[in-house]
Amino acid sequence: MSTSNVRASYSPPERLLLGPGPSNAAPAVLQAMQRTLVGHLDPTFIGMMEEIKAMLRHVFQTENEMTFPVSATGSAGMEACFVNLLEPGDEVVIGVNGVFGTRMCDVAERCGATVTKVEAEWGTIIEPAAIAAALEGRKPKLVAVVHAETSTGALTPVEEISRLAHEAGALFLLDTVTSLGGCPVAIDDWQVDAVYSGTQKCLSCPPGLAPVSFSPRAMEVATSRKTKVQSWYLDVNFLASYWGSERVYHHTAPITMNYALHESLRLVLEEGLEARWARHQQAHETLKEGLARLGLSITSQEGHQLWQLNAVGVPDGADEAGVRGRLLNEFGIEVGPGLGPMKGKIWRVGLMGHNATEANVERFLDALGQCLT
Amino acid sequence: MSTSNVRASYSPPERLLLGPGPSNAAPAVLQAMQRTLVGHLDPTFIGMMEEIKAMLRHVFQTENEMTFPVSATGSAGMEACFVNLLEPGDEVVIGVNGVFGTRMCDVAERCGATVTKVEAEWGTIIEPAAIAAALEGRKPKLVAVVHAETSTGALTPVEEISRLAHEAGALFLLDTVTSLGGCPVAIDDWQVDAVYSGTQKCLSCPPGLAPVSFSPRAMEVATSRKTKVQSWYLDVNFLASYWGSERVYHHTAPITMNYALHESLRLVLEEGLEARWARHQQAHETLKEGLARLGLSITSQEGHQLWQLNAVGVPDGADEAGVRGRLLNEFGIEVGPGLGPMKGKIWRVGLMGHNATEANVERFLDALGQCLT
Repeated sequence: MSTSNVRASYSPPERLLLGPGPSNAAPAVLQAMQRTLVGHLDPTFIGMMEEIKAMLRHVFQTENEMTFPVSATGSAGMEACFVNLLEPGDEVVIGVNGVFGTRMCDVAERCGATVTKVEAEWGTIIEPAAIAAALEGRKPKLVAVVHAETSTGALTPVEEISRLAHEAGALFLLDTVTSLGGCPVAIDDWQVDAVYSGTQKCLSCPPGLAPVSFSPRAMEVATSRKTKVQSWYLDVNFLASYWGSERVYHHTAPITMNYALHESLRLVLEEGLEARWARHQQAHETLKEGLARLGLSITSQEGHQLWQLNAVGVPDGADEAGVRGRLLNEFGIEVGPGLGPMKGKIWRVGLMGHNATEANVERFLDALGQCLT
Repeated sequence: MSTSNVRASYSPPERLLLGPGPSNAAPAVLQAMQRTLVGHLDPTFIGMMEEIKAMLRHVFQTENEMTFPVSATGSAGMEACFVNLLEPGDEVVIGVNGVFGTRMCDVAERCGATVTKVEAEWGTIIEPAAIAAALEGRKPKLVAVVHAETSTGALTPVEEISRLAHEAGALFLLDTVTSLGGCPVAIDDWQVDAVYSGTQKCLSCPPGLAPVSFSPRAMEVATSRKTKVQSWYLDVNFLASYWGSERVYHHTAPITMNYALHESLRLVLEEGLEARWARHQQAHETLKEGLARLGLSITSQEGHQLWQLNAVGVPDGADEAGVRGRLLNEFGIEVGPGLGPMKGKIWRVGLMGHNATEANVERFLDALGQCLT
C-alpha cells in the first residue's frame, strides 16, 4: 500500500458566483444538505419525492405525470431526453446557435439519429422561419431547440417552433437549463413534449440533479420503442416505476441532493414564479444601464437578451482573462469566459436565482469599473 | 398557472441505516455539504479535484491516472465502464450471482455486446473454474464480475478470475460498489482494468457520485474505438480532459457532492485502510455471534460472507416485512429486504463505513430480538 495521502479538509473561499453556473445556493438550501440521511425507499423520503414532483410540475407549469429529477447533472438530463425518444435511423431537426445546440447534435448522433442542423449566428435566436424551411419535405421524429443559450445569452421564443414541429408530426424537445426559474417557462402552454433543466442556475441549488418532464405523447414513444433505450441508467421505462407509485428499485437516488432540490423548489414557490421572474428582469435592466455608464453593452440579439445570463462585450484593448482573474482574486466575483467563437470577446455574467439582486449588480459593476481603469 | 404547491421543509427522521445503502454519512461529511459553493473551474476547486483523485487512487490501491468520480450514482459508474469499453458486436463474459451481475448483462447488451453468462446460485460466489469453462474456445473483449454482491452478501475472490481473463486476452472489469472501503480492494495487484464503486456504502458519503478507475490498457481501448461512446455524458474521452490537466469544460461537476467525497476519503485515509477493514470484520463477527444466540444465521456461502452486508435468514414463521417495519418504525433502524429469489427469505443487514461498530450491532441485535419474541 502506498504511503498515506490524507489531506486537510477543503475550505472553499467565499465567492459571488456571477458566471454561467453554478450560482450561489440559498443559505436554507445549504442547510438542508447537512440533514441526516434516510434510505431512498424510506416512507418519509418517498413522501418527499412526491412533493418534489408536485413542485417541479408547478415550476415547469405542466401537468405531466413524468416530471422528476434525473440523478445526475443537466447534461445527463439532455441525454435522458434524447436516448429515450430516439432510435437508430430516426431523423431530428436541431436548432444550433451556441454550445448547447451543438451538444444536442452530438448526443442525437450517438443515438444513431440523422441530424439536420438549423444554424444561426451565435448570439442570435433560432427563427421559426428557419425551422419551417428545414421541415419542408422532411418528417422528423423530433425537433429540438435550446430556450436560453447559456453560451451566448440569447432567449429563443419557442411557441411558434413548437407549433411547426407538431404540424410536421414531430415531438418538440426543449432545453431549459438556464431559463427554468428565471424567466417564463410554460411546458403545457407551449406543448413541449420533453424538457430538461439543471438545478444550479436559477433554482439556486447545487449542481447534481436534472429536472425533466415528458408529455404523455413522449412517454408513449418511449414505452413503445422497437429497441431498448441505450442507457440503462436513464431509461424512463425503469424511472417511471422508481418515481411512480410502484417504487421499484432502480438506482439509489442521491438523497442529499434531493433534500437540496426540495428546499430550493420550496423557496421558488414561496417567492412565486412571477415575482421571481420580475426580480431577474429588474437585475438585468439594472446591469444593462450600469454597463452603458461604463461604455459597455450586451452582445446578444437586441429584444432577445436573457435576463439571467448576460454576454458583456469585452472592450477593445481590455485583457479578457486578466479582468476575469482580477474579479475573482481581488473581488471574489466569478464571471464566465466566452466559449467557441465568443472566446475572448465576451464575459458571461449570470444573475441567477438567489443572486439576481440589485446589490449584486452594483457590487459587480463597481468591481468591473475598477478592473477596467 | 396552478395554485401554489409550496410545501414545508423536509425534516428527515433519525435513522440508523443498516440496509444495503445508503449508510449513515459521517457527521463531518454532512457538515462539509453546507459549505459555500464555488465554480467547478475555480482554481481552489480544481485543487480539490486533484486531491480527490489522489485519495481515490489510495483507496482503490492503484496508480491509474484515470481515477475519478463519475457525476452520478454507482449504477452510472457501471454504465460508464461498459459503454466506454464495448462496441456493437463485442463479446463479454459476465458472472451472475445476484442483482448486480444481472444488471451488468442488461447494460452490456444495450451496448450491442454478445453476453455469455456464468451463473451461480444466489448467495454463492463465482468460481474461477466456471469462468475458465466459459472462456474455452471464446475470445471475449471483457470479463466482468461483481466483487461484493449487495443482493446476497457473497464476496467473490477475483485474482484468479482476473488472471484467466487476461490469459484469454480480455480486459477485466470489477464492481466494487459495496466492497470499497470495507474490505481489501487492490486494483493494481489484482490487475483490474476497469472498476466502479459508489459513495454511499463503506465510504460513508451520501449517494450521488461513482468513483471509477481505468487502467492504461482500458484507456487505450476507450480512446481507439471505431465508434463513438454511446453516452456523451459518460465518455471518458471527454472526462479525461475535464478531470485531467487541460480542464476542458464538459459538464458541471456536482460541487457539493465533491466536497462530501473529499471529506469522506479524508476520513478513510485518516483511519487507515487496514484499520477500517478490521473494524468491518469485527462488526461482522460480533453480528454473527449475536445472531447465533438468537438462533439465526447468515445465508451466504460459508467462507465467503461479506463483512459489510449480511444476509440474515428469516426464521420459519417470522413475518419478514412486518419485522422490517417494526425495526424502522419502533427502533429507527433500517434494514433491507431480499431481492429476486431471496425475497421474503432474508433481511439484508449492512454494517458499512461509519456504521460498522459494535454498538450498532448490539443495538440491532437487541431490537431484532424484541421483534422476534
